[in-house]
Amino acid sequence: MTDGEHLHELSRGECLELLQYHSFVGRLGFLASGGGPMILPVNYLADETSVVFCTAPGSELGRLDDAAPVVFEVDDSRPLEHSGWSVVVRGVARAVTDPDEVEALNRGPLRSWAATPPVQWMRVTIQEITGRRIGR
Amino acid sequence: MTDGEHLHELSRGECLELLQYHSFVGRLGFLASGGGPMILPVNYLADETSVVFCTAPGSELGRLDDAAPVVFEVDDSRPLEHSGWSVVVRGVARAVTDPDEVEALNRGPLRSWAATPPVQWMRVTIQEITGRRIGR
Repeated sequence: MTDGEHLHELSRGECLELLQYHSFVGRLGFLASGGGPMILPVNYLADETSVVFCTAPGSELGRLDDAAPVVFEVDDSRPLEHSGWSVVVRGVARAVTDPDEVEALNRGPLRSWAATPPVQWMRVTIQEITGRRIGR
Repeated sequence: MTDGEHLHELSRGECLELLQYHSFVGRLGFLASGGGPMILPVNYLADETSVVFCTAPGSELGRLDDAAPVVFEVDDSRPLEHSGWSVVVRGVARAVTDPDEVEALNRGPLRSWAATPPVQWMRVTIQEITGRRIGR
């Protein structure tokens, strides 16, 4: 799934459709406190402007700097066909602190698979979204 | 899949087993030329010391700085059970330039799903490998 002749760029609409409705676990890429790149998977919800996930207060993701630059990736693959797609969001992560917004998220369908309440909600604002499909 | 009471750290042996035999597409996290974190999926092969993938010469991955710090992540999830596992490798990426090694890789089973020959082989040396399992 690298540059080559079998790669097709996806439109913004296709990317948002795949992000919102065709995946439930994505990978958050960020700069670790030591400086190097790091990736952690999270289950998430997305709309057309942001990706929301929750984590444990004080965890590595919960301690991300306010407005930290992050990347969020989802993909799916069919090995027999050597085909698949991926969508990459670039944006900034912020802890959700508004009490009304926190309450709405707590009432919503997304539950952390690991952290127990009270959780720390995080929102990644979508600044750029790109995607590609490979294979037939 | 964030810090919490349902998380179990995997041993190094479990991580290497999952990396080598239970996944075929992983996500490479690196610093983009602009400086922010970036993630791209690649199909790969791994042994106990490194992860190998191939890309098109001159592509974003092929142009990674020699010994660039990278992270490589694989995971699997069962949504109904809210369970899954993930393994994260931290290391450095280098283009494979030794002709004998390139020839051995060209003869091996790994094929790019996208790039057409001649491909650029890349090797990530495993400096640290960690993993966790969530749920039952």
